[in-house]
Amino acid sequence: MATIVDASVQPIPSRPYRLAHRTTRPAGSTITVGDVTFGAGSVVVMAGPCAVENRDQLLQTARQVRAAGARVLRGGAFKPRTSPYDFQGLGRDGLELLAEARAETGLLVVTEVMDSSEVDLVASYADILQIGSRNMSAFRLLQRAAETGKPILLKRGFQATIREWLLSAEYILAHGNERVLLCERGIRTFDSEFTRNTLDLNAIPVLKQETHLPVIADPSHGTGRADLVPTMARAAVAAGADGLLIEVHHDPSAAVTDAKQTISTDDFATLMDDLRGLGRYLGRPVE
Amino acid sequence: MATIVDASVQPIPSRPYRLAHRTTRPAGSTITVGDVTFGAGSVVVMAGPCAVENRDQLLQTARQVRAAGARVLRGGAFKPRTSPYDFQGLGRDGLELLAEARAETGLLVVTEVMDSSEVDLVASYADILQIGSRNMSAFRLLQRAAETGKPILLKRGFQATIREWLLSAEYILAHGNERVLLCERGIRTFDSEFTRNTLDLNAIPVLKQETHLPVIADPSHGTGRADLVPTMARAAVAAGADGLLIEVHHDPSAAVTDAKQTISTDDFATLMDDLRGLGRYLGRPVE
Amino acid sequence: MATIVDASVQPIPSRPYRLAHRTTRPAGSTITVGDVTFGAGSVVVMAGPCAVENRDQLLQTARQVRAAGARVLRGGAFKPRTSPYDFQGLGRDGLELLAEARAETGLLVVTEVMDSSEVDLVASYADILQIGSRNMSAFRLLQRAAETGKPILLKRGFQATIREWLLSAEYILAHGNERVLLCERGIRTFDSEFTRNTLDLNAIPVLKQETHLPVIADPSHGTGRADLVPTMARAAVAAGADGLLIEVHHDPSAAVTDAKQTISTDDFATLMDDLRGLGRYLGRPVE
Amino acid sequence: MATIVDASVQPIPSRPYRLAHRTTRPAGSTITVGDVTFGAGSVVVMAGPCAVENRDQLLQTARQVRAAGARVLRGGAFKPRTSPYDFQGLGRDGLELLAEARAETGLLVVTEVMDSSEVDLVASYADILQIGSRNMSAFRLLQRAAETGKPILLKRGFQATIREWLLSAEYILAHGNERVLLCERGIRTFDSEFTRNTLDLNAIPVLKQETHLPVIADPSHGTGRADLVPTMARAAVAAGADGLLIEVHHDPSAAVTDAKQTISTDDFATLMDDLRGLGRYLGRPVE
Repeated sequence: MATIVDASVQPIPSRPYRLAHRTTRPAGSTITVGDVTFGAGSVVVMAGPCAVENRDQLLQTARQVRAAGARVLRGGAFKPRTSPYDFQGLGRDGLELLAEARAETGLLVVTEVMDSSEVDLVASYADILQIGSRNMSAFRLLQRAAETGKPILLKRGFQATIREWLLSAEYILAHGNERVLLCERGIRTFDSEFTRNTLDLNAIPVLKQETHLPVIADPSHGTGRADLVPTMARAAVAAGADGLLIEVHHDPSAAVTDAKQTISTDDFATLMDDLRGLGRYLGRPVE
Repeated sequence: MATIVDASVQPIPSRPYRLAHRTTRPAGSTITVGDVTFGAGSVVVMAGPCAVENRDQLLQTARQVRAAGARVLRGGAFKPRTSPYDFQGLGRDGLELLAEARAETGLLVVTEVMDSSEVDLVASYADILQIGSRNMSAFRLLQRAAETGKPILLKRGFQATIREWLLSAEYILAHGNERVLLCERGIRTFDSEFTRNTLDLNAIPVLKQETHLPVIADPSHGTGRADLVPTMARAAVAAGADGLLIEVHHDPSAAVTDAKQTISTDDFATLMDDLRGLGRYLGRPVE
Repeated sequence: MATIVDASVQPIPSRPYRLAHRTTRPAGSTITVGDVTFGAGSVVVMAGPCAVENRDQLLQTARQVRAAGARVLRGGAFKPRTSPYDFQGLGRDGLELLAEARAETGLLVVTEVMDSSEVDLVASYADILQIGSRNMSAFRLLQRAAETGKPILLKRGFQATIREWLLSAEYILAHGNERVLLCERGIRTFDSEFTRNTLDLNAIPVLKQETHLPVIADPSHGTGRADLVPTMARAAVAAGADGLLIEVHHDPSAAVTDAKQTISTDDFATLMDDLRGLGRYLGRPVE
Repeated sequence: MATIVDASVQPIPSRPYRLAHRTTRPAGSTITVGDVTFGAGSVVVMAGPCAVENRDQLLQTARQVRAAGARVLRGGAFKPRTSPYDFQGLGRDGLELLAEARAETGLLVVTEVMDSSEVDLVASYADILQIGSRNMSAFRLLQRAAETGKPILLKRGFQATIREWLLSAEYILAHGNERVLLCERGIRTFDSEFTRNTLDLNAIPVLKQETHLPVIADPSHGTGRADLVPTMARAAVAAGADGLLIEVHHDPSAAVTDAKQTISTDDFATLMDDLRGLGRYLGRPVE
C-alpha cells in the first residue's frame, strides 16, 4: 500500500508516468516470452476463441491458428460478463484445456485473470496474463498480477484516456514487472450503430512516442464485426502495431460468446497470408 | 461460477435484468441500515472526507457533519488512485479511525472496498460497502461483496450505461443481497474544462422507473468543484434523489485528495439548512 | 469578414471570450422582449409544439399554454430534419400561423431560423430568433441573425463544449447584439438507450459563473421523453435556470415531430402549478 | 421545402437513406472531376494549406504539392473559426489566389463554403465544394451546394453518427447531385490530450459496405498532429480510403491556422513516395 517512488527515476516533464515513458528506454522495449519476442520489429499474432468452450472447440481452433501462423493462443477461462445470467467461463477446466492445447501445438497461452484471488491459479497455467478492459483500473489486481513475474497484456479500458492507460502500466512497472504489452481494443464513443466499439488506431503512433512498451491491436473487440476484422487488422499493421489479438473459432456461428466478431479458421488463414505479404512489404515480418 | 437463474422470476421484456427491475417491487425498495432507512421518502445525507487522513481530521469532520445533520460518515481507507505514486490510503488504520468516529458520533460508516481480497476486512468495519466507479464491472468483487450481506453502495462507472449499471446491481441481487444503493457520480463526456465529470441527473428519474432500488447522487465527484456542489445537491433533491454523498473536510485546502471538490464543514452546515427547507417544501425530509 | 476586436474590452485571463464573460457584467444581464424580462430573477416559460403543423393545432395549443401561464410560444416553421424525407416544416405559412397565434393570445413568438438566407423572413415574424443545436457553429448565420437586432436564443450544440458555446455567443455579441439567451438542450454521450440526449444541468451553475447571459433549459430535447420532462424541469429550476423551453401539443400522440418528448396541454398545466410552487419557495417566480 | 421521395427507389430495410445506400450502386460510384477520378481503385491525394494566406504561400505550396504528386489543391478562403477574434479567411481574394494557383499548376481546387449566401461565389471558383465538419447538418447549405452541380466533399461532423452523415449525403443526392465524396476527419471523444480528434478509420470499411460513395480520409484534422499524419495516412490507405486530404504548407511554423497539424512540403514529398510504394503493393495506385 505504500507509495512507491524510485528516487533514481527522473520525472518526465508534464507526464505523471515515468517508468513507462519512452525516455526510459528510447529504443523501445522488447519482451520475450518463450520463443516469441514482441517489440523487435515483427508483428506477433495471437488468435483463438473468445471463450474456451470445450476440448474439441479449443483443440481444433488451436491447431488451425497454429497452422496458419499464429504464435500465441488466446481463450478465456474466466469471462467477465455484463450479465450474471450469461456464461461465465469454464474456470479451472478451461485453464486445463488451454494447457493441453499448448502441449499439443506449441502455442503460448494468453488468458484473462479477472480478480486478484484468481491470479495465482491463472498464472500457473498462462504464459501471458491478460488484464481485461473493464479491469484496467483494478489497481490491486494489477499489483498482484505484476508480482507473478508473468508478462501482462494490459487492455485499454474502453473509456480510458491514454494517460490513464499508461498510469495503469506504471502500476505494473512500479511493482517490478517490466513485461507489459499494451492492447488497444476499441473505445466507447457516441456511435455504436455500425461497430460495437471504435478501434482507435491513432493510439498506436501516439504510444510509439509516449512509451517504450510494445503495442498490440485487437480488431475483434475493436469493431465487434467479423467482416471488418481483416481490414482493420491490415490498417493496424500499417499503423505500426507490434502484434494483433484476433478472435477465431473453428465454427463461429456456434460460438457461445462474441460470435459476431469471431472469424473462422479459414478466414484467419486467408488473413494471415494477406498480412504476411503486407508485413514483408513493410519490412515487419508477421509471425 | 454457475449461471444463476431463479426460474420463478419472470423475465422483463427487452430488459436483461430481472431482480433489479421495477416490476419486481413496484412500490420501490426500502433499505434499512442501523437507524437509517433509504427509499422511504426522505433524503439521507452521507458526508465526510474523500480519504481518511488522520485521527484529528476524521474526528473533527465527523463531529461537524453529524452536528449539521448527516446520518452516514464517508471516508476512504483504501483509495483507488490513477497514479501509483499518489497517496493510496491508510488501509486498516483508516478503518480503525472510521470505527472510532462511528463510536463517538453514532454515524454509520460507508467506505470503499477495492479488491475481493479486502472484502472481509472492510466489511468487518463498514456499515455500508462502497463499490467505486472504476470497479462497477469487477464482477468477482461484486459477488464477494454481496456475500457479506452488508448493504452496498454501487457507484456508476463513469462511462457505464444505465443498462450496464443495473446489470452490475443484478450481480449483487442474484447473489442473494437485496440491499443495493445506486449512486450516480458523474459520467465522462467530451467536455471536462469546467467540470471534472458531468453529473447525470437524468439518471435519477430514469432509474425511478427502471428499478426499485434507491438512488443516491454524488455532486462532489459529479462536478469536481466545491462551488457547484450546493447547486447540484439541490437539483438532485428536486430530481428525486433518495440520498446524497458529499465530500466534506474540516479544512478543504489541506485535503490530501480531491481538495477541489471538497466543501468545508461550515459550508456543509449551510447547505444542510438549505436542503432541509427544500425537502420540507417537497415533502421529502432531509436527514 | 474582418477580425472584430473592440480594443476597450479587457481580455479575460485564460478565456477567449470577452463580451460574454461574467466580468463584463458582474450583476448579470437582463434581457427584455416585449413585456417579458429574462435574467431578472424569475423563470420565464416558453412552450408550444415542436413544429407548426396547422392552424387548429397551433391555436389550440397556444391558447392552452397561455392559460397555464407560459409567456412565449415556441413552434418551428423551418425544421432542420436529419432525413430529407421527413417533414421539413410549413415555412412561411408556419410563420403566418405563429403571428396569428401571437395576435390572439398575446404570447411572444420564438422560432428557429436555419439558414442565413431566411433570417430576414423569420425575423419579420419572430420576437426571438432561435439558433438550433446543429447550427450553433454556423458563424455566418450567427452574424446575420445578430444584425437583425432581435434577441437570440442560442441552443447549445449537442456536442459543443461550454467554451465553444460561449464563443458562438461571442460572435453575436461582437456583431453588436447583446440580447443572447443560452439554451442547454442536452448533450450527446455514450448512452442513449433511455434518453435521447443527456440534459446537462451542470452547465447552469457553470454558466452563472462564466457569463452574464441568461440560461434557459430545454428538458424536452434534453431527455427526449415526455415522462421525464416534469422532473427535469423542476431540477432545472432548482439548478438556477432563468427560463424553460418545453414542447407541448394539444394532442401529443398526433404530433408530426418529436411526439415522444411532447407533453399534453393538460400535463403542462399541472407542471406549471408545480413549478409555480417551487418558484415561490425558491423566491424565483415562474411566469 | 417539399418532401422529396423518388417512388422508384426501393427502400432499404432498416436504413433511412436510400440513394446513398450501397444497394443503389453495388459496384460503387466513380466520381470524375476534370482529369481526376475518385472511386476507381486509385488513391487521390488532395493537399495544400489550411487557409489561403497570401500569394507567395499558396503558389509555393501548390507547386510543391503538385511536384510531389498531389492532384487537387486544398485551401480555405472562407474559414469557420471557433472564435470571432481569429483570422476569418481572405474571402474572395483567397478564391482568386486559388484560381491563379490552378491556372499555373493544373491542380484542381477544393475549398470550403460556409454559408448558403456564398455558394454561388465559391462555386464559381472551386472544382469541388467542401462542406465542413461544423456544417454537415446545415441542410439548406447542402441543398444549395447540391444545386450548383459541383462535386461535394462532405466532411463528417465531428459528432455525427455514420447514419447522420449518410443522411446528409442523402440530402445532396436527393437534390439531384450524385457527386458526393465522404471525408472522415476525426471524431470527438472523451480523450483529447494527445490528439485533437480521433481519426475513425473503422468508418472506411463500414462505409464501403453501407454506401457506394467514395471515402476520403483527413489525417491532419483527424489527429491534429503533423507527426502523426504520415502513419495515419498510411493506415487510411491500408483501410481502403479512396483519397486523402492533407494539410501542407511550405513553412508550417509560419502557418496562420492549424500550424500544429500541417506538414512541410518536404515531408509531404517523402510521404508521397512512401504512399506510392504502399499503393503499388496494394494494387491501388496513389496519385
